[in-house]
Amino acid sequence: MEKTEKRLKKQMEFLLEVDKLKFITRQTYLSDGKRKENDGEHSWHLALMAVLLSEYSNEEIDLVKVITMVLIHDIVEIDAGDTYAYDAVGNQSKREREVKAADRIFNILPEDQAVKLRQLWEEFEAYETPEAKFAHVCDNVQPLMLNDATNGLGWREHDVKKSQVLQRNGRTGEGSQVMMEYINRILDKNLESGNLRDE
Amino acid sequence: MEKTEKRLKKQMEFLLEVDKLKFITRQTYLSDGKRKENDGEHSWHLALMAVLLSEYSNEEIDLVKVITMVLIHDIVEIDAGDTYAYDAVGNQSKREREVKAADRIFNILPEDQAVKLRQLWEEFEAYETPEAKFAHVCDNVQPLMLNDATNGLGWREHDVKKSQVLQRNGRTGEGSQVMMEYINRILDKNLESGNLRDE
Repeated sequence: MEKTEKRLKKQMEFLLEVDKLKFITRQTYLSDGKRKENDGEHSWHLALMAVLLSEYSNEEIDLVKVITMVLIHDIVEIDAGDTYAYDAVGNQSKREREVKAADRIFNILPEDQAVKLRQLWEEFEAYETPEAKFAHVCDNVQPLMLNDATNGLGWREHDVKKSQVLQRNGRTGEGSQVMMEYINRILDKNLESGNLRDE
Repeated sequence: MEKTEKRLKKQMEFLLEVDKLKFITRQTYLSDGKRKENDGEHSWHLALMAVLLSEYSNEEIDLVKVITMVLIHDIVEIDAGDTYAYDAVGNQSKREREVKAADRIFNILPEDQAVKLRQLWEEFEAYETPEAKFAHVCDNVQPLMLNDATNGLGWREHDVKKSQVLQRNGRTGEGSQVMMEYINRILDKNLESGNLRDE
C-alpha cells in the first residue's frame, strides 16, 4: 500500500472511531427540553461559538487552535464517559480515566497528528494559554445558555446551586471578561426565577 | 443597554436559534447503525475532518474559512429541512427554500457577522473557490464513510445506485484528488459486497 493511502487509512479509522462521540450523552437539555445533548453536537456548538465570540477574548487568540481544541476536547469521553460538572465523586477519578482514553484514541492517528491533537487536549486541560482559556469560556457558556433557555431543566434535575455554577465559572473571566459578565446576568435572572437554587 | 451587551445579545440569540440544527435528521446512520445522524453532529464531524484532511486539498486553503463553512453549511435546514442527496423532487425546490431560510436565520446576528456568514454559505453553495471545493469534499466523504461502516444501511434503505453516488461525487476530485481515489476504493468495495446497487 502506498504511503499516502496508509496514512489516510489511519486518519479515516480515527474519524470513524470518534463517531462514537455522538453516543455520549451529557446532562444538558437541548433548547426544546425534549432530550439531552450529546458530545458531538455539543462540540459543534462550541466551535461555532468560538468563531462568533472570539472578539470577546481578553487576549489575542489563534482561532484554528481554539476551534480544534473544542472539536476534540471531549473525545476522551468515548472511553471515559461524561462526568457531570457537579458530580464530586466522578470528578476524583476523571483525570485517570481520561488520560487512558487519550492514550488509546489519539494514537489511532498517524504519529504527527496523534501528538498534535494530544498536546492540544493537554493544553485545554491545563487551562493556561489564552486559547485554552477561551475554549473553556465556550465550554462553560454553552450549557448555561441551554439551561437558561429551558428554565433550568438540567439544573433543576440535579438540584444545582448558584454557588456551584459560580465555582465552575471561577476562571471564565480569565478568558473573557465580557462573557463572565454575561454569565453573571444569566445567573441573577435564573436565581430570581427560581431555576437555580440559592444556598 | 450598552453597545457590547446589545451586540452580544444578538449573537447569543443566534447561537440559541441554531441549537435547532440538532433536531434536523439526515438520512445517514451513525456508525452503530442504531439511529440516523442529525445536522449538528454531522457538522462537527465535517469540521474535524477538515482539520485532519486539509493536507489533501488540491489547492492551498484558508482552514478557518473551510471550518466555518462546514459549521454553518446546513443551518438553512432549520427552516428548509434536510433534502436527501438522492431525492430528485425535493432538490428542485431546495434552493428557494434555503435562500428564504438564510434570509431569516443569518440576520439574527449583528449585521457584519450576518453578512459574513451569509457570504460563506453562498460561497459554499457556489462551489467555486478552493475552500468551497474542499468543504464539499468533507460533506461528500463523511456520509460515505458512515455508509461503508454500516454495510450500506442508508444506501440500502433508499435503494441507492453506484451511479448516483458517483454523480454526487462528480466534482469531489476538484477539491481533492486523494479523497476522490478514496471514494472510488470505497465504492468498489461496497459494490462488490452488494451494499450498493449496480444499475
